[in-house]
Amino acid sequence: MPELRQNPFTKQWVIIATERAKRPHELARKLEESKPLPSYVETCPFCPGNERLTPPESMQMMRDGKWQVRVVPNRFSALSRDGELTRKVEGLKVVVNGVGHHEVIVETPDHSKTTALLSESEVELVLETYKQLYINITKDTRVEHVTIFKNHGLAAGTSLEHPHSQLIATPIIPPAIRNRMEEALRFYDVQGQCIFCKVLSDELAEQVRLIHETEHFVSFIPFAALTPFSMWIFPRRHMAAFPETKPEELRDLARMLRTILAKLYYGLGNPDFNYIVRTAPCEGRYLRYYHWYLTIVPRLTRMAGFELGSGMYINPTIPEANAEFLRGIAIPADSTPR
Amino acid sequence: MPELRQNPFTKQWVIIATERAKRPHELARKLEESKPLPSYVETCPFCPGNERLTPPESMQMMRDGKWQVRVVPNRFSALSRDGELTRKVEGLKVVVNGVGHHEVIVETPDHSKTTALLSESEVELVLETYKQLYINITKDTRVEHVTIFKNHGLAAGTSLEHPHSQLIATPIIPPAIRNRMEEALRFYDVQGQCIFCKVLSDELAEQVRLIHETEHFVSFIPFAALTPFSMWIFPRRHMAAFPETKPEELRDLARMLRTILAKLYYGLGNPDFNYIVRTAPCEGRYLRYYHWYLTIVPRLTRMAGFELGSGMYINPTIPEANAEFLRGIAIPADSTPR
Repeated sequence: MPELRQNPFTKQWVIIATERAKRPHELARKLEESKPLPSYVETCPFCPGNERLTPPESMQMMRDGKWQVRVVPNRFSALSRDGELTRKVEGLKVVVNGVGHHEVIVETPDHSKTTALLSESEVELVLETYKQLYINITKDTRVEHVTIFKNHGLAAGTSLEHPHSQLIATPIIPPAIRNRMEEALRFYDVQGQCIFCKVLSDELAEQVRLIHETEHFVSFIPFAALTPFSMWIFPRRHMAAFPETKPEELRDLARMLRTILAKLYYGLGNPDFNYIVRTAPCEGRYLRYYHWYLTIVPRLTRMAGFELGSGMYINPTIPEANAEFLRGIAIPADSTPR
Repeated sequence: MPELRQNPFTKQWVIIATERAKRPHELARKLEESKPLPSYVETCPFCPGNERLTPPESMQMMRDGKWQVRVVPNRFSALSRDGELTRKVEGLKVVVNGVGHHEVIVETPDHSKTTALLSESEVELVLETYKQLYINITKDTRVEHVTIFKNHGLAAGTSLEHPHSQLIATPIIPPAIRNRMEEALRFYDVQGQCIFCKVLSDELAEQVRLIHETEHFVSFIPFAALTPFSMWIFPRRHMAAFPETKPEELRDLARMLRTILAKLYYGLGNPDFNYIVRTAPCEGRYLRYYHWYLTIVPRLTRMAGFELGSGMYINPTIPEANAEFLRGIAIPADSTPR
């Protein structure tokens, strides 16, 4: 019998479609089939030596006299850095001037790598860059919220191969964050507790959906995972905002993120995926009821008319079975680029 | 300067990204490049003569002694027709038994057709089938809401070529409907008016986003279109629920739907698309504040990490320019399958 499960943070429903359930390995592609990338591509705007192909950098993290992580404004920026924050309301038409920031984080000079194949210290440097960039950009008082995300592969919305992630700073609070805050506050009003802390402690007690634990972070498949293998990484310590993460926690997060992405890489054959840092609005750094976390969404299925129409999802896999599968995926000691 | 525009029904924001704006024809593919389909495919479960490949039909609409529209339960049903409606709440884990209906509407015996290439009376018969099926299925008191939708093409989530649409009847009210009802009620509370009727009359007055008008329906591009060329078809008469549509209105809707889809077909070169009938919950047939409408979403761009993370969208086209483009697309008098 299929089950409808509800995401407690958003009240979204997912149909766990047992009648069409696929076993985890059925969603994997063969790693050998994904063709190895070259370390350098002459026309790639993110490869070293081609820096002239991007706008001047906003930030650089250096190593041995060369850049290791490089931040540049998006050439096709969705928002404009210049201009005043204005709002125009004409009846039901509401328009806010599109001011904000849209930056690209080039994660490594090496075109051929992917996060799963970077070293822990390289991933750590990427996360440090996120934090530093967040802090720099939120000095701009027009910014209400910052979304940090990564698109890996065509199905995840990018045709650029060179490992990169993005940051978009918006002059409004996005609905996906507002929605979570409203539900979390409702829970806090009654229970006097952070709903995210509660889910984390429930998952740690129940264990069946856990993937991996580190000193400061826990990763698991949500009970109501909307899509196959979508995963959450939660900080154990209550923190509303990503930039509150301490240096030793960032280092630990690098270890966690790399491990989880390597499990995906080796377990499902380098699938396309997105990840997103879901952090509180700029003004909500110390909220007691909101808790930042990282969502990873492998793009193994497609949104069709039902999802677009209902806001519900059909997940043709079993979250508990997927978690068990990922727990069992070992990462080769010599995890280097192919 | 980019603009952030807000959908008044959902409070979703879209960035109209003028800096990367594409002109309408840049999103078109060449119609000549989409390969013509055969009228009959031996292995297609929806072609006449292959009826044994589907479960027994739930409904048939006959013409000249043969079926013209055929409804069958989905072989890989997301929900189960049998079983009791039960709910299990364990802390923050909420589970509803997956009971409901998942039906496939085969729109024509001809494998090679698409809605744009059917005759008006053929489209009318499909819409009549939707209505009759809705009425039949909602006799099941476990059903709270019915989503009727179509997936056309791979990017829209289907690999089945034979023209078909689907109906999923759920034992809960989907969040996308609940969300619209809440916002609409909030508006009604203050203004004493249906927010959908208000948007319709504003669009008729402003004209710039209109695509096509018929006696009973109006189609336009939303002011805050989340994706390029997403379109709405609104009934002029206030009706909360699709099955309230009268026979002469259905006939008129067939004319409208076929016209709009033909404009897409000829204007953008047979793009993949979804459409969805957004109707009130079963118990809300006569709501004064909700208004059913049809949404068409061509799948010309992809959801990436920003959309998944923020619930916001980036639309790299201008709604007003797209509406003008579609108004100018003429439909060949002899619109027959290629």
